[in-house]
Amino acid sequence: MTSRLNFLQQSAMGLAGTLSVPLVSAAAPEVKGAVALNTGIAGYTFAKFDLEKAIAMMKKVNINYLSIKDIHLPLNSSQEKIDSVKKQLADAGINVYAVGVIYMKTKEAVDEAFAYAKKVGVPLIVGVPNPELLDHTESVVKATGIRIAIHNHGPEDKLYPGPANVMELIKGRDPRMGLCLDIGHAIRAGADPATAVKLYKDRIFDLHIKDVTLAQKDGKAIELGRGVIDFGALVKALQKIKYQGICALEFEKDMSDPLAGIAESAGFYHGVVKTLS
Amino acid sequence: MTSRLNFLQQSAMGLAGTLSVPLVSAAAPEVKGAVALNTGIAGYTFAKFDLEKAIAMMKKVNINYLSIKDIHLPLNSSQEKIDSVKKQLADAGINVYAVGVIYMKTKEAVDEAFAYAKKVGVPLIVGVPNPELLDHTESVVKATGIRIAIHNHGPEDKLYPGPANVMELIKGRDPRMGLCLDIGHAIRAGADPATAVKLYKDRIFDLHIKDVTLAQKDGKAIELGRGVIDFGALVKALQKIKYQGICALEFEKDMSDPLAGIAESAGFYHGVVKTLS
Repeated sequence: MTSRLNFLQQSAMGLAGTLSVPLVSAAAPEVKGAVALNTGIAGYTFAKFDLEKAIAMMKKVNINYLSIKDIHLPLNSSQEKIDSVKKQLADAGINVYAVGVIYMKTKEAVDEAFAYAKKVGVPLIVGVPNPELLDHTESVVKATGIRIAIHNHGPEDKLYPGPANVMELIKGRDPRMGLCLDIGHAIRAGADPATAVKLYKDRIFDLHIKDVTLAQKDGKAIELGRGVIDFGALVKALQKIKYQGICALEFEKDMSDPLAGIAESAGFYHGVVKTLS
Repeated sequence: MTSRLNFLQQSAMGLAGTLSVPLVSAAAPEVKGAVALNTGIAGYTFAKFDLEKAIAMMKKVNINYLSIKDIHLPLNSSQEKIDSVKKQLADAGINVYAVGVIYMKTKEAVDEAFAYAKKVGVPLIVGVPNPELLDHTESVVKATGIRIAIHNHGPEDKLYPGPANVMELIKGRDPRMGLCLDIGHAIRAGADPATAVKLYKDRIFDLHIKDVTLAQKDGKAIELGRGVIDFGALVKALQKIKYQGICALEFEKDMSDPLAGIAESAGFYHGVVKTLS
């Protein structure tokens, strides 16, 4: 492990120089001097499509920030493969702002995820390290300077059902360890998304935005605006904390034919944001 | 003409009894005791598709009010054909709230349009009678009780470029003669949509909602929220006048593959309406 950590530490030294994708804060246009609330897409949305089709859908809905999923860029990809995929995305005007969601069940998996993020050139991993790996994860965060946003996955998830379960385990840790607040899984786990945003403000590094039919375990994915989540309250909370991250749509209904649902969801979110800006 | 008008007058006597489609005011769910602002679709959106595909797209975006266009139900259809199409729509849960846009260049065309609306069983025609036919149109409105919403079609239109041009010609006429305010064509003709709504309030029977790239003649159709129209101001104006009609999306970009654009537009509109309700 030592040599691996040394490698990561050395890598971190050169990270700024190798970042070919701009940091979000640099790329985000300002809206009326307030919070930009840039919309992105969580790559899992395109689980049933190759990257070319995923890109085409992103262009159709005019969304240009992607948290890339290993389905579209495997963790064991060569640097050559990574560079090729990055070029494909850059040519389409798409910014890869994060990698993930990446599950990490061993120390080696943690190391692999951070090495992968470095090779991809992103400052953020959306990930799920097992709780017993958080000490090690913290050391790798310190070594690499790469942030981790831990994703909550709803009442079925034994590790991190709601945002409180994540926060309880990271609250005293390095401030570069935070939360990818999945609002659909959060509300199914009993956590109000707007309240969570205000509670965990500085630790929210990423958002998965979606809607669900019910605020309980068996709530199902649905187009934004048709479900139970109060997006007006959410957006107001994000404005209040001056959220600087991406609001990544993760659409999990009609996954074999998701474009219309993605488009409706994006439109709804933009309608709410525009009205409150 | 006399026998034709007699026919229409007799028909009007039985209109209430033959209406199989509920009036909008009866069908519209109330939102927070305020204005419902039900969303519909203007049939021209589906100009390149048959009715079956049009219905499928409406169901996908969860919009159930249609202003049916002659493309999908020709004006000279038999009652049997009309009944069959009405059943097809009713089976899909879609309410035909109006017919149109119907262009009327002769008295006979006016009579045909109103007879068609009666056979379809709708209380509203979205139409464009030539200005010299407005006296005749008014007599048929009085005879049938069917309302007409005259559609403005932008600066290229020699008859009715903006809403003011319609209103100037109908202001002293029967109150069942009004306006289908096409906000995209209006703004291209120099009329601010929200201002027009407040100015012509009681005469606005229908709305074509869309967005355009520029507030001038060569503005092009674009997804709602990506263009120049201030939908927050529009929705506030509609709430102020307690608008009781339908807000019909008319999407004229990507007409061979419009679903994503319709969905994004519908989502955006619903996001604005929800935020302001």
